[in-house]
Amino acid sequence: MTRPNSPGRRSRDAAAATSGPAYVTRSIPYYAMLDEDALAQIEAQAFRLLQETGIEFRDDADATRRWREAGAQVDGTRVRMAPELVRGLLACAPSEFTQVARNPARSVRIGGRHQVFAPVYGPPFVRDLEGGRRYGSLEDFQRLVKLTHQLAPLHHSGFVTCEPCDVPVSKRHLDMLFAHMTLTDKPHLGAITEKSRAQDSIAMARLLHGDDVFDRHCVIMGNVNSNSPLLVDKVVTEAAAVYCAAGQGLIAVPFILSGAMGPVTTAAAIAQALAEAMAIGAFTQLVRRGAPFVLGNFLSSMNLRSGAPTFGMPEPLMSNVVIGQLARRLNLPLRCGGALTSSKVPDFQAAAESADSMLSTVLGGANFILHAAGWLESGLATGYEKLVLDADRLGAYEVVLRGMSVDDDSLGVHAYGDVEPGGHFLGSAHTMAHYKTAFYEPRLSDSNSVEQWEEQGSKDAARRAFDRWNELLARYEPPPLDPAKREALEDYVARRKAALPDAWH
Amino acid sequence: MTRPNSPGRRSRDAAAATSGPAYVTRSIPYYAMLDEDALAQIEAQAFRLLQETGIEFRDDADATRRWREAGAQVDGTRVRMAPELVRGLLACAPSEFTQVARNPARSVRIGGRHQVFAPVYGPPFVRDLEGGRRYGSLEDFQRLVKLTHQLAPLHHSGFVTCEPCDVPVSKRHLDMLFAHMTLTDKPHLGAITEKSRAQDSIAMARLLHGDDVFDRHCVIMGNVNSNSPLLVDKVVTEAAAVYCAAGQGLIAVPFILSGAMGPVTTAAAIAQALAEAMAIGAFTQLVRRGAPFVLGNFLSSMNLRSGAPTFGMPEPLMSNVVIGQLARRLNLPLRCGGALTSSKVPDFQAAAESADSMLSTVLGGANFILHAAGWLESGLATGYEKLVLDADRLGAYEVVLRGMSVDDDSLGVHAYGDVEPGGHFLGSAHTMAHYKTAFYEPRLSDSNSVEQWEEQGSKDAARRAFDRWNELLARYEPPPLDPAKREALEDYVARRKAALPDAWH
Repeated sequence: MTRPNSPGRRSRDAAAATSGPAYVTRSIPYYAMLDEDALAQIEAQAFRLLQETGIEFRDDADATRRWREAGAQVDGTRVRMAPELVRGLLACAPSEFTQVARNPARSVRIGGRHQVFAPVYGPPFVRDLEGGRRYGSLEDFQRLVKLTHQLAPLHHSGFVTCEPCDVPVSKRHLDMLFAHMTLTDKPHLGAITEKSRAQDSIAMARLLHGDDVFDRHCVIMGNVNSNSPLLVDKVVTEAAAVYCAAGQGLIAVPFILSGAMGPVTTAAAIAQALAEAMAIGAFTQLVRRGAPFVLGNFLSSMNLRSGAPTFGMPEPLMSNVVIGQLARRLNLPLRCGGALTSSKVPDFQAAAESADSMLSTVLGGANFILHAAGWLESGLATGYEKLVLDADRLGAYEVVLRGMSVDDDSLGVHAYGDVEPGGHFLGSAHTMAHYKTAFYEPRLSDSNSVEQWEEQGSKDAARRAFDRWNELLARYEPPPLDPAKREALEDYVARRKAALPDAWH
Repeated sequence: MTRPNSPGRRSRDAAAATSGPAYVTRSIPYYAMLDEDALAQIEAQAFRLLQETGIEFRDDADATRRWREAGAQVDGTRVRMAPELVRGLLACAPSEFTQVARNPARSVRIGGRHQVFAPVYGPPFVRDLEGGRRYGSLEDFQRLVKLTHQLAPLHHSGFVTCEPCDVPVSKRHLDMLFAHMTLTDKPHLGAITEKSRAQDSIAMARLLHGDDVFDRHCVIMGNVNSNSPLLVDKVVTEAAAVYCAAGQGLIAVPFILSGAMGPVTTAAAIAQALAEAMAIGAFTQLVRRGAPFVLGNFLSSMNLRSGAPTFGMPEPLMSNVVIGQLARRLNLPLRCGGALTSSKVPDFQAAAESADSMLSTVLGGANFILHAAGWLESGLATGYEKLVLDADRLGAYEVVLRGMSVDDDSLGVHAYGDVEPGGHFLGSAHTMAHYKTAFYEPRLSDSNSVEQWEEQGSKDAARRAFDRWNELLARYEPPPLDPAKREALEDYVARRKAALPDAWH
């Protein structure tokens, strides 16, 4: 397997090319916001919740049975687990692993010092500058998968880039899986909303990758949420049973709106999120020791007047950094963050909130960053312009993650031979030797003079982004796929669609 | 003197109130991007430049005489200085100091763990949503000083918030000083463009503060730029001679567009900036041992196609963090960063670039952050909307700087008594005890549903910001000022204006 991620490599037009590094490996330190004592206190509170309050595992007798057999204290649906049991199980999960893509050059490494960026997950609506806001359709979904394929800073195709609302809920996952498997060769996630849909995801992944690769590698993952506070329903445990039993990965993410699904104070919300994610992580290891597991975290603050969630605010910014510290203590891969905002449109608010949210994730060291591009309106809408604008900034974060070179050459020790005080470095030997790789080149930032900018139509960033995603779609080309595999996938989808009723909820 | 900056205090509507903490004191760690060895290499290169290449001190025989007397090697205008000479002089500068405001509650502490935010400095143009882009006028200038006064996250009034282009250059500084001294009681900077203007600044500050306060405290500072590479002109040395001789402060900022005024590689540009700023800092101590000095840094990257400067890019983001590490090694206060962008309008680009630029400054630990609000168009225009939008985000950074509480209460150890798994924390005892202080409340972020947002006119952030600054101006009230002082200042301005010719350059 190729991992084209040598430290010296840098995409010159990161957001432009389909090709780019498959993922990023950081050479900069993590930002450590809390000291060890504070981290230990948060961890102790998380373990206290697991042991004293316990976690509800509802509607899945198989799940409570597994816990009982493992030695947890099970009273009906309430599972109380000792710290050593949880720690022991989590220690079985790999600290990092590879999710193999159908194009091996696009396989991603999840955990350790690696970061993987994936687009927004879940919005029922889409928005673009000319089409406005509307329910997502299968056509939207396919276009968003194509764009994700074309945007190099997105390493991973995610899954529900928008809901294709024109397809029955019962069949939707089949079209979505087919799109990810055929329109891109980047890795992607699978369905989890029902056990049979998880099974379809696994079956189709097996067809795409072949038994040999499927049985030896993680090729697909499910992303599940706990029902905070402290409740895990059968969607989660069944997804774990399907994905992990097949040796595939699970990402478990408590989504906590502090003050509603968790305590209103940030440290307490982090502790609860940690407890819930650890409980699910431990459960994945009950299903299969060594199954790839990603500890997730999604904390949001709240508008106190309306109760609406808010994003990109200082409290979740800090939690992104702290949860990174906590995940490293557990030696587990981490999912958190994203380019989050409550703005309805790709305006100043959207960018400011997204930037602070993303940069904290980058400095904090999250390994898998879902929602890294395209998120609008508190996650209710996928923005076409937002997708390409965010990707442009992700390219900049890649440069930050690779860090700064400090040696005699990059220090310019010999740069002053042909430049005198008061002179200039334009065209100097040192400049000529370095200028091509010195700076990140954003696609969508305009640094022209105001006169040039006006001449070109006084387009703001959103308007330039509209032009850009339309251009990208116009030149989209699907990556090659073995016709036999394509046919097998088509057959599977047709067969399953014929067997399933149309259901709209 | 009061310093209302207790750690527990948090402005509930930070960008709304005139009142707020006079400055911020961080309780979070600095982000350390480079290790000690890399920092030592950069520092060594800076000292190598000072000793081997040297710095040009032009057009000021007094400056070269001071260097010669101090033991530097002076050949004509070229001054080569030994590391121990520079280190010895810089050690005389205070590691932190207070700039006293005419309202003592607004005095700011510069250096150490403190951060002070000030608005944009220098643009000849202004822009607002309805008035468009135009040359700044004295009326604009006065309005921007009023707005800065009203925006609590701006701790400092800066100086050239825009150029009042309708006033002759020769007299402009008098109107600007008078505006800062009468329309706000926050601290501000003074003029430096000519020796006599620096002297006017000092004279008016003495009138405003009275001899007793003026002679015992730093009440005004000048902000000067080196002429990179490695050239210091008489604007700088004369400003140092005027401000520092009077016991007042000097901020020295190399403005380096990497690849033009300095090497194209980031580490080299940082080393050059450090060398230039250290040379000016050492010079301030030749003028007066113990004079308040702030080490500045302003590195910009470049669009390789056009040669235009770019802002908010990953390279200067990293340099903000690294220069913070270097300033702490020298035990000197640092100015860097700002909410920088090359965007012409307050759009997605403006916010994304500004956010990454500012957050890196905040995590890196800059002490005085000029350009923290209002900067547009690579510094050529002050944006009215941008000013209030940036201030809203500065309030969020204040919350980050104060850090996260971790104790039994904030961990919610007793929060689960009245909340069961699957329940909710809305109205729980722990929530009721904490919700009022749990979250930052942004003024300009809209977290409403899309339906509410549409009902309220589908206003994007820039439009809401337009409404906001107009509201603020409508309710502006000047802070009280002793009528005798006001009269003395009016007299001084009238007298000087009568004595000076109208000059437009």
